[in-house]
Amino acid sequence: MPTSPADARHIADAERLASQGRFTTDPNPRVGCVIVDAAGRVLGQGHTQPVGGPHAEIMALRDASAQGHSLVGATAYVTLEPCSHHGRTGPCCDALIAAGIGKVVASIADPNPLVAGQGFARLRAAGVEVEVGPGAEESRELNIGFFSRMVRKTPWVRLKVAASLDGKTALENGTSQWITTEAARTDGHAWRARASAVLTGVGTVLEDNPRLDVRLVETTRQPHLVVVDSQLQTPPDARLFISGRAVWIYAATPADPQKETALKARGATITYLPNAQGKVDLAAMLADLARREVNELHVEAGHKLNGSLMREGLVDELLVYLAPKFIGSGMGMASQPHAGGPLTELAGALPLEFRSVDRLGPDLRIVARVAGRDRFQG
Amino acid sequence: MPTSPADARHIADAERLASQGRFTTDPNPRVGCVIVDAAGRVLGQGHTQPVGGPHAEIMALRDASAQGHSLVGATAYVTLEPCSHHGRTGPCCDALIAAGIGKVVASIADPNPLVAGQGFARLRAAGVEVEVGPGAEESRELNIGFFSRMVRKTPWVRLKVAASLDGKTALENGTSQWITTEAARTDGHAWRARASAVLTGVGTVLEDNPRLDVRLVETTRQPHLVVVDSQLQTPPDARLFISGRAVWIYAATPADPQKETALKARGATITYLPNAQGKVDLAAMLADLARREVNELHVEAGHKLNGSLMREGLVDELLVYLAPKFIGSGMGMASQPHAGGPLTELAGALPLEFRSVDRLGPDLRIVARVAGRDRFQG
Repeated sequence: MPTSPADARHIADAERLASQGRFTTDPNPRVGCVIVDAAGRVLGQGHTQPVGGPHAEIMALRDASAQGHSLVGATAYVTLEPCSHHGRTGPCCDALIAAGIGKVVASIADPNPLVAGQGFARLRAAGVEVEVGPGAEESRELNIGFFSRMVRKTPWVRLKVAASLDGKTALENGTSQWITTEAARTDGHAWRARASAVLTGVGTVLEDNPRLDVRLVETTRQPHLVVVDSQLQTPPDARLFISGRAVWIYAATPADPQKETALKARGATITYLPNAQGKVDLAAMLADLARREVNELHVEAGHKLNGSLMREGLVDELLVYLAPKFIGSGMGMASQPHAGGPLTELAGALPLEFRSVDRLGPDLRIVARVAGRDRFQG
Repeated sequence: MPTSPADARHIADAERLASQGRFTTDPNPRVGCVIVDAAGRVLGQGHTQPVGGPHAEIMALRDASAQGHSLVGATAYVTLEPCSHHGRTGPCCDALIAAGIGKVVASIADPNPLVAGQGFARLRAAGVEVEVGPGAEESRELNIGFFSRMVRKTPWVRLKVAASLDGKTALENGTSQWITTEAARTDGHAWRARASAVLTGVGTVLEDNPRLDVRLVETTRQPHLVVVDSQLQTPPDARLFISGRAVWIYAATPADPQKETALKARGATITYLPNAQGKVDLAAMLADLARREVNELHVEAGHKLNGSLMREGLVDELLVYLAPKFIGSGMGMASQPHAGGPLTELAGALPLEFRSVDRLGPDLRIVARVAGRDRFQG
């Protein structure tokens, strides 16, 4: 059944509300809800609040209630299946039913196995009409990390690089600050802000001593930080230890207990996940990060770690800023990105799909997705 | 004085007509002309024909005449100053005056020193009102090569590269066909078609034996071909010898007379322009090409010649096709593009300006101009 123009408009409004939570709902999905009466008048609206707070449906119900509206027979447009389980909050289905909602139009089923259709079943059992589908693609995209974690049991891995037009991320001597301009860096912070965690390598920590936090856009939540640090070389006085976020260090070789104690005193969580080569097992690390409820993982690392992630097939998306500069010889975006060594045939190149291309001041932003990576079930 | 909406519309129409000649007028500029009466009714229109044929003004006058219109007091909108000299054709000014045209609105003065304001002076002396300016930027852009040749005495050098997102133009083993898809290659042929000449290096000739002609778009004129070939290694049976275009080989070391004779028998013109290093003096070559009436020079060469052209500051514009692929290790766009060797400071990077970014099927096309190169007088 094609979506009616009115349904499409209300779902689009709910989607815009959902997007307002993109820096804050983590690790919960970003959801919006609009409740309208039979005449199409908006009675209440809301979006999911920071973790532990009300979901979108509850916010919309409260909004309508505050305005004194009766919701009997009203239609709720919501960008994700209402929850049916007692998680951190009570089930939204029950609240919708209790309010007398007559119909729910939902964009897509919740991939969370604790919900997964049970929300719709519960609504229908209570006599609520349920329609699913309008805005499904947009809702899944906004929550691609949540879907990835629920379905693939691994975060959505987005690798950010800033390079010159000829693909160089640094000079031969390592200089890389700043290839792009303020507009691109600010945009980069917005992508950090929507991630559950930022990942870097100890090489970057030792060379640049970055904070890797969100400063150039406003946010009430700092993403957590992940450091790939095989030999536990992160200095306890590194600038990345910032209150209000976790620092998860993944190591391979047990370090001296004193160093470990010093890092833990700074708030670090250290996890040993060695692979056969004595490096961090990156795939196991991602699975562990999913268990820690990481939806979107934002990678800002050097070309070696970038190459390792690509070589092991762990990258889902590239966020590339291209500056209008020509550098010539220097560092590339990722070294040794292919498992079999340098390619001998073009067919071996990692296939991408350009999702968007935008101008940011003098720079370009290209979002390129590894072909097929988003086509997991759910 | 701001341009009136009607003037802007007529000049835009003339500009569209001018653009129809972009594959054919070479080495003449691409010019369009629209003649309208006092009520704004179009009486005649035309654009410059292939070399030796009528200019835009004559075409428009003939068009109006064929329809039986009187042109007394009419206004001619033309995208370049009407010529006042006897070149390959008679002066357009005289024809406009003879037809009784009352006003000429021209986009921009002709940079040709044989015209350069004399056209306007001649019209005014005959009592024709003259206005200059509307559409100046667009007309100059469409004829950037002509303006470059007239003002700088050198062609406009546009360097085309096809690369993966990470800036690789070939694998380590040299494989480069095909990084981009049909849509990008077709677009590349349209850029060849508008150039006066295509330039390549003997390395490309020996490795790929390309035709470097226009096949994927329709054209009645093939651009000439330029080969940078220091030691005259171009094989006389190379596929690049195609009837209907010149092949200009620039060499540095006199070759054996037999080889030279064989190449000349194939139609090649050989010019020796050695520099102190025994290579072809590229700047002198460009000056020579300007004398041969090359406006836009379209470079499709390997990373070494690309690097040499950049290192010597001879590149005006980059035409970059980016494919949604990640190659990793391979050939870059240009090797050693900086005179002082690898950069030690980012400030030394060649500054560019992104002029346009477009999707072509799955690929991207980026036109990036070397900052300031288009700001020559004229």
